[in-house]
Amino acid sequence: MKLKIGIVGYGNLGHAVEKEIYSSDKYKLIAIFSRRNVKSKFLTPIKNYSKINDYIGKIDIMIMCGGSKNDLMWQSAEVLQNFNIIDTFDTHELISKHASNLDKIAKSNNHVAIYSCGWDPGLFSLYKLLGNTILQGKTNVFWGKGVSQGHSDALRQIPGVLDAIQYTVPDPKIVKLATSKNYNIAQNQKHLRLCYVAVDEEKTKEKIEKEIRNMPYYFKDQRVEIYFSSPKEISKLKEKMYHAGKVISIDENNLIINEVKMISNPQFTAKILLAFINAIPKIKCGAYSILDIPPSYINKDYLSCL
Amino acid sequence: MKLKIGIVGYGNLGHAVEKEIYSSDKYKLIAIFSRRNVKSKFLTPIKNYSKINDYIGKIDIMIMCGGSKNDLMWQSAEVLQNFNIIDTFDTHELISKHASNLDKIAKSNNHVAIYSCGWDPGLFSLYKLLGNTILQGKTNVFWGKGVSQGHSDALRQIPGVLDAIQYTVPDPKIVKLATSKNYNIAQNQKHLRLCYVAVDEEKTKEKIEKEIRNMPYYFKDQRVEIYFSSPKEISKLKEKMYHAGKVISIDENNLIINEVKMISNPQFTAKILLAFINAIPKIKCGAYSILDIPPSYINKDYLSCL
Repeated sequence: MKLKIGIVGYGNLGHAVEKEIYSSDKYKLIAIFSRRNVKSKFLTPIKNYSKINDYIGKIDIMIMCGGSKNDLMWQSAEVLQNFNIIDTFDTHELISKHASNLDKIAKSNNHVAIYSCGWDPGLFSLYKLLGNTILQGKTNVFWGKGVSQGHSDALRQIPGVLDAIQYTVPDPKIVKLATSKNYNIAQNQKHLRLCYVAVDEEKTKEKIEKEIRNMPYYFKDQRVEIYFSSPKEISKLKEKMYHAGKVISIDENNLIINEVKMISNPQFTAKILLAFINAIPKIKCGAYSILDIPPSYINKDYLSCL
Repeated sequence: MKLKIGIVGYGNLGHAVEKEIYSSDKYKLIAIFSRRNVKSKFLTPIKNYSKINDYIGKIDIMIMCGGSKNDLMWQSAEVLQNFNIIDTFDTHELISKHASNLDKIAKSNNHVAIYSCGWDPGLFSLYKLLGNTILQGKTNVFWGKGVSQGHSDALRQIPGVLDAIQYTVPDPKIVKLATSKNYNIAQNQKHLRLCYVAVDEEKTKEKIEKEIRNMPYYFKDQRVEIYFSSPKEISKLKEKMYHAGKVISIDENNLIINEVKMISNPQFTAKILLAFINAIPKIKCGAYSILDIPPSYINKDYLSCL
């Protein structure tokens, strides 16, 4: 029996999840829920988010595709009251709060939540855990060069910003250091964050720049460069959503490098979500990260990997 | 409370596990069990394997450090009757048989077994599972250049062989292909297996070469080169037990590369064993591979990896 899926939120990630579901024969997409008036080119039924509870009992898993900055904390919690959910919540500093909130709701409603299930947090969390535990050295994470969905989304939430995209670029000298020496590297020195921003009024630029540079978790105390562009230029940049990343663990005698490269960040994230929803029917009610789930639960052919 | 450890088998891996335990403050090594008359330079009590059951109730986990070819199948099963065990059983084709045997014994004796917990099978099994499940393409594994403990051990079991070492060398052209294209690559074409063998009598060479080339699972149908050397030369080669490996998963749009490099194969394997024994007190009786264990069980600080 195919898992019956709903998608909540129809931005870049929602579109990518929809496309991945149609390119697989393992899942049945029942509906997409959005607060906006949108259309699906795959002709998936689009329902207003306010109607989501009409689907109680008709959908096995809701894939939460809203942004972490403003949506997922309240929306995953709300939807979890009536459905199993999976999300990509990626504000590292707030994950434990989000997790314990979801765990309570999941347990009192007999549902399962998988949270923070993208590539970082998510796949990279697993790489970090393995590197940290097996080796007695340092683990460093690098992102990019590529488009950060979370950071781009955070920029777009600033009043006066029409559109924006953020490229994360690792400093090659620091990547080399992390690969060759067991060495302490400050997290905020590893990357350059290039922000391309379109604003509605020339005079707001200074205020917006200040707001970006002071945004906690996202840009504060980071190496940030801001470029103001036209909505048209940004629209063109947004056609390419490539990304990449590395988790490097090292001690005196050993090196582990885990590397990903992708043409489309939303597509790769969608693929991870669709891998881990396979675990949901196998786990008891509660909230789980990737680290809490036996990896074999994601693939019935796991024995062939041994 | 520190986990109380026993080591069964005192070859390269047993020595490496002993050294790793003494360089950590998390475990207490109670005794080493060997069928040979050996000494520990760390002054660990060495007991004859026949006395192992004198330690029932005194050791939490036995780390099985025998070879896969002749030892682990019977020895893990035997020791599991009275102790929790972890092993590195690495004959890929026989793992499911080994696992179901251990699972029965573990359940009827209320113990836990973790099997095939090295870097391949083990860490690489996890990488393969993730790559296979997330991407819809091909996953290829490459080993080397480095010393295969399992294959060296298999060579040394041949009657007439005094000592031996086996280097696994990946074909760089094929590694490049696996990284650039979603392409089917025959397993036995990926590597060259360089065997350095010392024999006791000149006249046995031909027979031994034939036996190597026909050894199932290890050398049959592989690209094998055999070099006869003196015991002294091999002893010198064995001082360096470096190894390396890569798991490469690819589809049309995405690439995942997991790479390890180590100065000492036994040391890296020992580190993986000591990471995963942390899971044993948290799991119910039965036999588990790395894929069956929630990764968070190996490290109490796992939340910091999210």
